[in-house]
Amino acid sequence: MALKKKPVTGMKDILPEEMQIRDYVIRLIKETYGNFGFSSIETPCVEHIENLCSKQGGENEKLIFKILKRGEKLNLDAAEKEEDLVDSGLRYDLTVPLSRYYSNNANNLPTPFKALQMGSVFRADRPQKGRFRQFMQCDIDILGDATYLAEVELILATTTLLGKLGFSGFKVRINDRRFLKAMASYCGFPQESYDQVFIILDKLDKIGPDGVLADLVASGFSKESAERYLELFQTVTPDAAGIRMLRDTLGDHLPEDAAENLLNIISSVNATRVSEFDLAFDPALVRGMSYYTGTIFEIEMEEFGSSVAGGGRYDEMIGKFTGMQTPACGFSIGFERIITILLDRGFQVPGASDNQVFLLERGVAREKMCAAMKEAMELREKGVRVLVAQMNKNKKFQKEQLMKAGFTEFKDIYKD
Amino acid sequence: MALKKKPVTGMKDILPEEMQIRDYVIRLIKETYGNFGFSSIETPCVEHIENLCSKQGGENEKLIFKILKRGEKLNLDAAEKEEDLVDSGLRYDLTVPLSRYYSNNANNLPTPFKALQMGSVFRADRPQKGRFRQFMQCDIDILGDATYLAEVELILATTTLLGKLGFSGFKVRINDRRFLKAMASYCGFPQESYDQVFIILDKLDKIGPDGVLADLVASGFSKESAERYLELFQTVTPDAAGIRMLRDTLGDHLPEDAAENLLNIISSVNATRVSEFDLAFDPALVRGMSYYTGTIFEIEMEEFGSSVAGGGRYDEMIGKFTGMQTPACGFSIGFERIITILLDRGFQVPGASDNQVFLLERGVAREKMCAAMKEAMELREKGVRVLVAQMNKNKKFQKEQLMKAGFTEFKDIYKD
Repeated sequence: MALKKKPVTGMKDILPEEMQIRDYVIRLIKETYGNFGFSSIETPCVEHIENLCSKQGGENEKLIFKILKRGEKLNLDAAEKEEDLVDSGLRYDLTVPLSRYYSNNANNLPTPFKALQMGSVFRADRPQKGRFRQFMQCDIDILGDATYLAEVELILATTTLLGKLGFSGFKVRINDRRFLKAMASYCGFPQESYDQVFIILDKLDKIGPDGVLADLVASGFSKESAERYLELFQTVTPDAAGIRMLRDTLGDHLPEDAAENLLNIISSVNATRVSEFDLAFDPALVRGMSYYTGTIFEIEMEEFGSSVAGGGRYDEMIGKFTGMQTPACGFSIGFERIITILLDRGFQVPGASDNQVFLLERGVAREKMCAAMKEAMELREKGVRVLVAQMNKNKKFQKEQLMKAGFTEFKDIYKD
Repeated sequence: MALKKKPVTGMKDILPEEMQIRDYVIRLIKETYGNFGFSSIETPCVEHIENLCSKQGGENEKLIFKILKRGEKLNLDAAEKEEDLVDSGLRYDLTVPLSRYYSNNANNLPTPFKALQMGSVFRADRPQKGRFRQFMQCDIDILGDATYLAEVELILATTTLLGKLGFSGFKVRINDRRFLKAMASYCGFPQESYDQVFIILDKLDKIGPDGVLADLVASGFSKESAERYLELFQTVTPDAAGIRMLRDTLGDHLPEDAAENLLNIISSVNATRVSEFDLAFDPALVRGMSYYTGTIFEIEMEEFGSSVAGGGRYDEMIGKFTGMQTPACGFSIGFERIITILLDRGFQVPGASDNQVFLLERGVAREKMCAAMKEAMELREKGVRVLVAQMNKNKKFQKEQLMKAGFTEFKDIYKD
């Protein structure tokens, strides 16, 4: 029987060339985040279907790969709907499993707990270029710290990592959901419509202030509120002065500590960071996930349109899941996006060129072969990558293919 | 809604303590096998159901986690049997995906191709202590090399790795399926019963020669064949002399190059290896998988009963799948078993003790906090792992938990 050669729809085989970069980036992430005191953890790829369908995953819950029950539990005749057939599914993110993990293991974990997760997640999304149905996510989360120390550490760790990956000229934008809400409240939008207002505000970059104004009005909000809202955004500067101005303007609409919290984060990051980046207050930063409760942040790079990292504080999520109130704050980098950028740049893994290939002509005597292998073993002990392989008839093509796989130096070992 | 706290049946959450060891072992494997010229590759966890159910997986095909079709493709009303409901499943090993990968990507891969795969596989096995339904496999395979160079490289790479992991006193046992067959043929067993004979022979360690003899006779084989068979095993020595003796005895029953091939492997490994181990010919080594066509090998360690690594040559498998005849030879280490041994031994990851914890008393001034963070950033730059965290009321318990997660040195930063 012939095998299906392509991977399943929307998933991909990873070739050595890309894998070399992935392995390097994974190593660098584990090392850098490790130095920030984050501990690696792992959860299974398979999760209870009830946990996946608990309404925390938003749109992602429509994209679950569901797993069939097995053995006696599967009763095809009695099954009336999909739910009767499945008991588990593949995780679509790492946050739901983290919540379960924390509630299962909190007794064996320090408080606060700094977690690093790197793992595959699965979404049965419509296949499209550059987006795959299995992809790597890379999250750091600090659980059990309600103070701004968590935000500062997350921003320092993520920017340090991006610096080590050779990225520069990136910009960290920061906001607080409480500012978003206070501004909406101050301008007289009804509380139940905040999310709708924020969705329109989120288009500011694309459609400009006039577009947002028009959209708000078209959505039935009062012109007065809309105009006041836009005016507010236009007078705020993207810095500490802007935060203070808003604090004074918004008055009681804003919780007392929100401005100070944001000011503390910004000044602490600026006082302690080691890499160069622009850290700016952005009162128009929204971020989609409605589970955020406080600070939100995003990193973008000029050469690359959209964001490469994002996160925020979600103090109420774990409690909702587990009944155990736990402040939480996380930052996620776009692992696959970063790999794509590095591949496009022709990134060379440091030290990867330190390699050799010994090609043995067919019929080489065993003694000669062993001498070559002995030399290879000595080089390998010194950390050099050495491939010993039989020489093909088409030696030129063989070398071309080996060069694609990252090999650079060749030595032919002939029969005579 | 409360979340289910435990992982799904038979799978596990990995705590920081174990994860530290896993990350270290993964790094060492990638580095060591990388130096032997193996290239990391990756395949999706999800595979076509047809590929998984192609009779190459033996008993494992009964243990597949099957994935429900999605969208319009799922027709519950019309579905009569399980196969109508599923289109894919989770891989139960890395060999089937490797075969698919190679046939899909051979044009972009060098020949021979040395592949390193580390990845999770899934088997819905009966849950039992120490065996999980998701576990890591770690395979190296050489595709496209029909010569014994492949076996030599695989044995050198695997034994070098075990040495680097601190294991010693291990024993590599080697045999060839062709010897197994020739010995059975020489003793007059009917060809169609070879597999049955080998299954009984495989119990030699447990039930001894008399037990095997009795079992063979009880299974209906002639007493003469059985006695001749056992006598042969008792006269063979586990070395080159034994191989030569068998070659002379078996004559035409054995393919011409089989003995020379085995002798070449043994003498080449002995001439080139850098670590200490016992390499012995074991004519009674069977290994379960019927897809092996030539050399088979296994590594066992005295302190640990069963094998920690195994593999062999399977020249016909990829061709069966793809129609493209490709010699292949692989070696797989028991990753989870190795982690268990290291955990039991209380293994300490080298360099892991190079860490510090700064605990900040509640109410520390921002300036004091920033000074501590600045110090932390400088230490991190030097490669020291530094955790900065808020001090809990129960500082003693907090430190105990942090020590469990691998932290060793503490510095308290008080308010005044």
